[in-house]
Amino acid sequence: MNFRTDLALERANMIAPTELEGVETKTNQIDNATITSVEVKNEKGAQTLGKPIGKYITIEIPPFTSDSDFLDGRLTAVTTEIKRLLPDGEVLVIGLGNRHITPDAFGPDCANEVIATRHISKEVAKHFGLGDLRSVSTLSPGVLGQTGLETVEIIRGLVDVIKPSAILTIDALSAKEVSRLGCTVQITDTGISPGSGVGNTRCEISQKTLGVPVISLGVPTVVDGMTLCTNLIEPDEEEEDEIRKKLSLKKESNLIVTPAEVDLLIEKASRFVALAINSALQPHLKVEEILSLIA
Amino acid sequence: MNFRTDLALERANMIAPTELEGVETKTNQIDNATITSVEVKNEKGAQTLGKPIGKYITIEIPPFTSDSDFLDGRLTAVTTEIKRLLPDGEVLVIGLGNRHITPDAFGPDCANEVIATRHISKEVAKHFGLGDLRSVSTLSPGVLGQTGLETVEIIRGLVDVIKPSAILTIDALSAKEVSRLGCTVQITDTGISPGSGVGNTRCEISQKTLGVPVISLGVPTVVDGMTLCTNLIEPDEEEEDEIRKKLSLKKESNLIVTPAEVDLLIEKASRFVALAINSALQPHLKVEEILSLIA
Amino acid sequence: MNFRTDLALERANMIAPTELEGVETKTNQIDNATITSVEVKNEKGAQTLGKPIGKYITIEIPPFTSDSDFLDGRLTAVTTEIKRLLPDGEVLVIGLGNRHITPDAFGPDCANEVIATRHISKEVAKHFGLGDLRSVSTLSPGVLGQTGLETVEIIRGLVDVIKPSAILTIDALSAKEVSRLGCTVQITDTGISPGSGVGNTRCEISQKTLGVPVISLGVPTVVDGMTLCTNLIEPDEEEEDEIRKKLSLKKESNLIVTPAEVDLLIEKASRFVALAINSALQPHLKVEEILSLIA
Amino acid sequence: MNFRTDLALERANMIAPTELEGVETKTNQIDNATITSVEVKNEKGAQTLGKPIGKYITIEIPPFTSDSDFLDGRLTAVTTEIKRLLPDGEVLVIGLGNRHITPDAFGPDCANEVIATRHISKEVAKHFGLGDLRSVSTLSPGVLGQTGLETVEIIRGLVDVIKPSAILTIDALSAKEVSRLGCTVQITDTGISPGSGVGNTRCEISQKTLGVPVISLGVPTVVDGMTLCTNLIEPDEEEEDEIRKKLSLKKESNLIVTPAEVDLLIEKASRFVALAINSALQPHLKVEEILSLIA
Repeated sequence: MNFRTDLALERANMIAPTELEGVETKTNQIDNATITSVEVKNEKGAQTLGKPIGKYITIEIPPFTSDSDFLDGRLTAVTTEIKRLLPDGEVLVIGLGNRHITPDAFGPDCANEVIATRHISKEVAKHFGLGDLRSVSTLSPGVLGQTGLETVEIIRGLVDVIKPSAILTIDALSAKEVSRLGCTVQITDTGISPGSGVGNTRCEISQKTLGVPVISLGVPTVVDGMTLCTNLIEPDEEEEDEIRKKLSLKKESNLIVTPAEVDLLIEKASRFVALAINSALQPHLKVEEILSLIA
Repeated sequence: MNFRTDLALERANMIAPTELEGVETKTNQIDNATITSVEVKNEKGAQTLGKPIGKYITIEIPPFTSDSDFLDGRLTAVTTEIKRLLPDGEVLVIGLGNRHITPDAFGPDCANEVIATRHISKEVAKHFGLGDLRSVSTLSPGVLGQTGLETVEIIRGLVDVIKPSAILTIDALSAKEVSRLGCTVQITDTGISPGSGVGNTRCEISQKTLGVPVISLGVPTVVDGMTLCTNLIEPDEEEEDEIRKKLSLKKESNLIVTPAEVDLLIEKASRFVALAINSALQPHLKVEEILSLIA
Repeated sequence: MNFRTDLALERANMIAPTELEGVETKTNQIDNATITSVEVKNEKGAQTLGKPIGKYITIEIPPFTSDSDFLDGRLTAVTTEIKRLLPDGEVLVIGLGNRHITPDAFGPDCANEVIATRHISKEVAKHFGLGDLRSVSTLSPGVLGQTGLETVEIIRGLVDVIKPSAILTIDALSAKEVSRLGCTVQITDTGISPGSGVGNTRCEISQKTLGVPVISLGVPTVVDGMTLCTNLIEPDEEEEDEIRKKLSLKKESNLIVTPAEVDLLIEKASRFVALAINSALQPHLKVEEILSLIA
Repeated sequence: MNFRTDLALERANMIAPTELEGVETKTNQIDNATITSVEVKNEKGAQTLGKPIGKYITIEIPPFTSDSDFLDGRLTAVTTEIKRLLPDGEVLVIGLGNRHITPDAFGPDCANEVIATRHISKEVAKHFGLGDLRSVSTLSPGVLGQTGLETVEIIRGLVDVIKPSAILTIDALSAKEVSRLGCTVQITDTGISPGSGVGNTRCEISQKTLGVPVISLGVPTVVDGMTLCTNLIEPDEEEEDEIRKKLSLKKESNLIVTPAEVDLLIEKASRFVALAINSALQPHLKVEEILSLIA
């Protein structure tokens, strides 16, 4: 395959259904959101799909054209799926990525708009009419090249101290289809290996390495040259070998690219996803109440 | 041709030398900079190349790896070529592009580091040991969608009031080769039509519309999907028709993309080019003096 | 007086009513906004107040605590006063100040959210259901130290080319009362002299220098050390001389300061004022329609 | 005292030398830097000064006028003092403060330019000619209101996992003298209590709470209204009571302010201090090598 993608859905779509042993897919249309569940049920499925055993929910929504779009059915769709996968209790939200690289800043920017509540006492919450707040804390630790620290080291220490019930990571992903960038959300219960599609077990952020459930939410923001190219040309089987060979000879094939309007894409996506996360975590608050707490 | 590029050099390279009637090209290697002059000498050449009559100087330099790179031979190369094309006397520097879209912010960011001197009296300059400063003013007016104004309208009014000897525009360009982004400089004496490769004469920023010489400096920062793809695959003549047809059917082919590390690319390129412009405009100042005036 | 302030209201309040010959003041409370009109009627009044002849409307609103505050009575108050002073016809909006200095960025940031419409044809506006749009253009030219150009030179040229019916400038002001910063709006029909409380006639942006009515809208964002100090201590008449002498000996008295949370203050104020300007300029659009055009 | 300040030096200066029992001060002038050591030797001194037992080194340097200032004697002065207090071995650098509030962003911005090396193997360092790098990691965790987490909780977890020899915190401070903002550096071996001058022991970042030496470096960036005012007026003993009473009645006295040019102040201070820290941590690298690794 000439495609690099972090989306289980795109991987599944590239494989003939008859060959998808151990993988179960279901699709659902709710208003303007298409929700596809890809479940990797066993090791056979994991090998076929190149993804660990677990559930991968993908929500495809139309591109944002204005801020009022945030309030239509797509918000409910993402909120519902987060609620479905995330266990009850205290949540630690981790924004992954480098905030100084715009297409990688989705995680930190989004986490920055998730309302932290762990430090707010019941009395204070009551006084401000916020009701019974779920305990939420957030951290955006940066990436290895900035900090010299594996992200999992930072989280492991924190988990020992604050003992959350679950971790929710937020990250920028790569996709095959350029048209998905900024308007597809993947939520999975398998955790994540930052900075790599290849499973680097040592650095995995997952229940295995951290001892608590890890739900990972991602939005694709980049695509690499080879993937973009193969996807645009859609070679038939005969051409494929030829094209693959040509692409592999060019070092530009490895270049990671993002749409020119990346700033707006990241801003819209991080505001929308933060709103969905806040709605899932504090379901008793109205959207307007959440918006007034963020701003 | 399946290529969109603002670089005369890339256009010339795509045409067999025997067919380049009316176009003269010369190449020069100075230290680590390759300087190519493409001169469109007549209407025949303009049609062949799809570019107006005039000189197009391209300086190709290695990608920046550290700030000290700014001070090697490549700085001299760009400074020399700016001096060669730019007439003497008072200069108005215009940063073109939308500062809120990172790959388009090259013009405004670079112009922001060009030292404005028009308001500094001889006495003040003397007092600070700055010698005989050339009169320089700068403006980054934004783009039509932000302002409702054609850039040429804003410049025309200003030219009437301040009567500069020449205009120097700075702009982000598109290229064919992704590897050029951020590390190629094109300087031309033909002016520029903002927001379009197609000559929209009414909006042209040129001697014709403004009455003073217009030198345009650009650095490529984006590439479109179709161009990236065709360039990576390099189809032979037989395949070309097929590939072109496939690409033209996909709307993603029109998507403009930029490298994921666009923030750093723009920062480095705009600092380097501003240093070259300042060195060309105030040749009596040392690089350290210029750096201390910018910061 | 030990006070530096750009607000006519604060100047008037410092003078005994019996001494305010040639100055007329009226106050109005509408919902949570206090609207004061100070009218300087003749040269006598101009000398007393240290402000040119004309109308100065000040709208005092409570500090913003959340984004929903934008939609209460204070928006109507500011919108109404802008409509009252601004003539009909095509408007050129100018954002004054240096966008790289946070407390001075109010003008450019606010102008950036004013919807430019001059380039939108009637057909396009109709197609998008925007009705009959008033023609609006915007420019944020930067300050003399950045550009080498007096702002009035840039505007004069543009006025000759596009011939607007009126100019609306937006600027950051200084105030006496720290509690006003970010939550007071002054609108005047006298124009403005950028970068100075002292009338520098040559650089004035006014009907006198530009030939069209100039309405100036400002929000205070800074205060100087001496003013802050005198205002906090409120010396009685006996102490005043002593205090004034002490302050004038300290060079820190001249330091311009701003609240530590200046980033949020500027963001909130510029979004709110831009919303009010857009509502005044396009009264047929609903607030939600305006918000969706800005984002 | 009507003064709030985080600088031990300013506190010591406010007390008559004869009353400074348990406190030892020494001053040293090196080139353009004034270095004062204030040592709190016992509980008596701690009570007198209102600061924990330990060493407080203050380096006063002239305000920055250009980037070349970074390379004069003041860099050596700060580098030397960091080396003197910081133990050998692996260092964890913590940038304290809220990066979205400009005057509070000094810690995160400065830590961002400290070169992390913990993840660079000896082989890689050798290959790039970087010699024997000291192991450094960095983290800027944000503040309680953003994260819901006490900073000490985040650090404690991380210390357990990576076991550094020492911690170096970087933070924005408050001062009495406005003229010090951005150009005074305090280094202490006592640790720090974020968000408060008052000792909140539970949240202290110190050897007591973390088990490893904590060196704290700070630069003042803010001053409060009451302090600014009292400092400008310098009331004599008779006036003092009166002035204090007046100030305490005004809620604006509590407002924290910063110079209007805070953006530049923070940028210059964080670049300079990061350079000093890098020079102290990697003394075998030349300044140019360090600069090329940051950029």
